[in-house]
Amino acid sequence: MAVGLTELPPLLPIDGVRLGSAQAGVRYKDRADLAVMEIVPGSTCAAVFTRNRFRAAPVLVAERHLQRATPRYLLINAGNANAGTGETGIEDAIACCRVVAKHTGCENAEVLPFSTGVIGERLPVARFEDGIPVALDLLSADGWADAAAAIMTTDTVAKGASRRVTHAGKNITVTGIAKGSGMICPDMATLLVYVATDAAVGGSVLQQCLREAMDVSFNCITVDGDTSTNDVCVLVATGRGEQAQSIDSAEEGAYEVLSQAVREVCTELAQAVVRDGEGATKFVTITVRGGRSRDDCREVAYTIAHSPLVKTALFASDPNWGRILAAVGRANIDELMVDRVSLYLDDVCIATKGGVDPKYREEDGQRVMDREEFTIGVDLGQGSADATIWTSDLSHGYVTINAEYRS
Amino acid sequence: MAVGLTELPPLLPIDGVRLGSAQAGVRYKDRADLAVMEIVPGSTCAAVFTRNRFRAAPVLVAERHLQRATPRYLLINAGNANAGTGETGIEDAIACCRVVAKHTGCENAEVLPFSTGVIGERLPVARFEDGIPVALDLLSADGWADAAAAIMTTDTVAKGASRRVTHAGKNITVTGIAKGSGMICPDMATLLVYVATDAAVGGSVLQQCLREAMDVSFNCITVDGDTSTNDVCVLVATGRGEQAQSIDSAEEGAYEVLSQAVREVCTELAQAVVRDGEGATKFVTITVRGGRSRDDCREVAYTIAHSPLVKTALFASDPNWGRILAAVGRANIDELMVDRVSLYLDDVCIATKGGVDPKYREEDGQRVMDREEFTIGVDLGQGSADATIWTSDLSHGYVTINAEYRS
Repeated sequence: MAVGLTELPPLLPIDGVRLGSAQAGVRYKDRADLAVMEIVPGSTCAAVFTRNRFRAAPVLVAERHLQRATPRYLLINAGNANAGTGETGIEDAIACCRVVAKHTGCENAEVLPFSTGVIGERLPVARFEDGIPVALDLLSADGWADAAAAIMTTDTVAKGASRRVTHAGKNITVTGIAKGSGMICPDMATLLVYVATDAAVGGSVLQQCLREAMDVSFNCITVDGDTSTNDVCVLVATGRGEQAQSIDSAEEGAYEVLSQAVREVCTELAQAVVRDGEGATKFVTITVRGGRSRDDCREVAYTIAHSPLVKTALFASDPNWGRILAAVGRANIDELMVDRVSLYLDDVCIATKGGVDPKYREEDGQRVMDREEFTIGVDLGQGSADATIWTSDLSHGYVTINAEYRS
Repeated sequence: MAVGLTELPPLLPIDGVRLGSAQAGVRYKDRADLAVMEIVPGSTCAAVFTRNRFRAAPVLVAERHLQRATPRYLLINAGNANAGTGETGIEDAIACCRVVAKHTGCENAEVLPFSTGVIGERLPVARFEDGIPVALDLLSADGWADAAAAIMTTDTVAKGASRRVTHAGKNITVTGIAKGSGMICPDMATLLVYVATDAAVGGSVLQQCLREAMDVSFNCITVDGDTSTNDVCVLVATGRGEQAQSIDSAEEGAYEVLSQAVREVCTELAQAVVRDGEGATKFVTITVRGGRSRDDCREVAYTIAHSPLVKTALFASDPNWGRILAAVGRANIDELMVDRVSLYLDDVCIATKGGVDPKYREEDGQRVMDREEFTIGVDLGQGSADATIWTSDLSHGYVTINAEYRS
């Protein structure tokens, strides 16, 4: 039951990108669990990968392939992460790439593999041999929504976002899909996210565009503080749209327009992941300002977001602000002047100077906590830096999902 | 439903210490929630306090009083933490000390106040005025068990431990009580813990004895990663037992004997806190060895212990070792060579060289996970340091307790 997420919004096709999906039976029955994304030759591609040291086999292979060639096909499966599988896992990932190469005539290195699901089980390569040709047959510019559904694991809704922007009279379209619900605390990379634009963008500029977008979107969310072994985000630029003149510098006006659209798509997708966080009943924005550095503000925000006591209070709609204050107090920052700290729930001031605000009334805090979406605001009163992150609560649903599902 | 905790063990009286408790109605009805511990003149006293920057009013007052005098009375209440209460909270804590001083004739600074419970509510001082004389009337050398019960909050069992050891033909007795179940991730100090010995010990040596004991007991446990605002541990030496010659150096043979007994009492109490962790159904030891430093090993161990995905897998008795490996992989240590990492559940080797062990069979892992108590062992394969911590699982009980109880 995702918080404030309705149907998947209409996803605009990207000229030069086609997607197909299939019921390969990797783990699930009666649903697609394999997707292929085809990228037109001449595109550029940027990617960021998880910083977890136990990187899954497909992450290692994708990185290696990306160094050798510009990808023509992305191969994505749900249900099995092919992580913690050692050398065998790498061979399995390469074998799956080879199936795509065989059917399409591309080079093996032009296929990037991505997996998400249970850690520590071998990939059923034979099922990929059956499923891949089916997905390839279904390749379509309108395949985004089906692909978004095919890559889900504990997600309860498919996630996608589109933007169409204009620069100098020329349209630029950006569309992305993402999966993710648990093991969500991306570190410099994220879950599985695929974003494409029809603009033409030089490789290093595209990588900068992706990095900047990550920084304000997927690197600002947490569901459970666990950084996945398989996180990845790919940004493709096909150059097939009206913006056909390659954007080769971040100084160009077109860069800012594109970059803003990519940030918006990534932020919408990142928030969708939190809204659909495992067992989530609340979507909470945590804004920390008045810090000495953005890092300090982020540390305080994440300490609040990761506190099981805060998260269970959110679930209970209990304005138990003492737990928030206790989390601020144990955040790992150099200096904290407790008598300067203020705390807000939306516009309700709860604490000032480290203690309860004299005007605060419990019913005011309760009114905010009863909302499905609200903001916890902290002012450290020490500087001018700030940071905003998004998180969900810790509910019985979270425990049930993770006690019963092998992710 | 505490894991492997039966009845409170017999608690040996300490000559020079008397305890009394009372139903003061601070928060609870039909149970004692206030305790007083009387310490004979001539005793020495050591204490460590929480490192959370939002230190509760009683912590601030206790620290201040301790600098001015050797305590004669410890005043402890459950149900209200008197934290986040600003200057008013400090006045309230002092007012309660004054009630004890008035009835006993001691100085105000000879009373140390301690509170645990809900954060952010004012202490009902009037109830202390009624409850304190009752507790004082009941002071008894055999009051340990009643006091252990009076200081409980979400604890389901009272916690205490005793040791009697001998050095040079002289008995030394050590007895301690503790409370704690949630907001448990002590940082250099802990929960509420009161330990006393009848040995005579110099002040600085007693502080060293306490610090060393903390280091291997309360600073090695976590239930939920939340460090409380009210943690405190007090160690009292009355000098009224057979060991009447003051231990004034850690080089003395008697120090090692006493110190070992204090470590054992503290470890038993610390483990009892985890066994009675909120909603705990498992008591899990996490041992990390082969690290470059003890800090590295502790960081890896705590990352595992704090992972909600690992904790829910423990609750489900699911040998989902991929989640453990993922936690190791995101631990914040300088260098991790994943191909050297081994993983064990008790004596079952699950992973070697960063991948699943060829001989591992799921039923072997399942057999261990089905146990109520077991060890997760990690070998980093990089050095000779090690660390051991204890933790509990994340169950529906945890969510229920913290969504329904205001702590």
